[in-house]
Amino acid sequence: MPIEAYEPPYYVAVFTTVRTQEQSGYCETNARMEELVKDIPGYLGMDHAQTPGGLGITVGYFRDAEALTEWRTNAEHRAAQERGRAEWYQSYTLHVAKVERSHGFLRG
Amino acid sequence: MPIEAYEPPYYVAVFTTVRTQEQSGYCETNARMEELVKDIPGYLGMDHAQTPGGLGITVGYFRDAEALTEWRTNAEHRAAQERGRAEWYQSYTLHVAKVERSHGFLRG
Repeated sequence: MPIEAYEPPYYVAVFTTVRTQEQSGYCETNARMEELVKDIPGYLGMDHAQTPGGLGITVGYFRDAEALTEWRTNAEHRAAQERGRAEWYQSYTLHVAKVERSHGFLRG
Repeated sequence: MPIEAYEPPYYVAVFTTVRTQEQSGYCETNARMEELVKDIPGYLGMDHAQTPGGLGITVGYFRDAEALTEWRTNAEHRAAQERGRAEWYQSYTLHVAKVERSHGFLRG
């Protein structure tokens, strides 16, 4: 199930990635980050999709800019980002945006 | 390659989906929408990732809110949205957000 439509305003961090062939340690670090982010006050949830051999998209949802700043500057997260650039990512883009409108659909 | 980091402000439309078993006509309509959206002034691009049997995430990038309104209210797009709710989607969420910050990384 995708993350629901929260009441705006809230923030999304859209992280789009292409990975390298060198993925040693990636899974463990990714799992650790998924746990760690849950401790950030204002963290709302995460969606992830991965096309096999292609693009990965992770969307993190946060209540406010302060929550995002706390996550961005977390020491363990920063170490993981650095290792990502050194080993795991061929390219990535991060878009941080304030949600103005949202809605959801669930089949009845 | 993921869509690059444009100069803010710009808009993202984050569309997260779980599809039904009934996918007749989906591919053709999706391909048509990918063509149609290119005619919208202010359309910047799109990223898509699909976990097999799981979540799909499409992120559309637009220069301003007017471009998004034009796309949202396009007659052929509206018909596709309606068919999506009737047939193709088990659930979805749409988050429309104004990008405040972005950056990219490309392995040297």
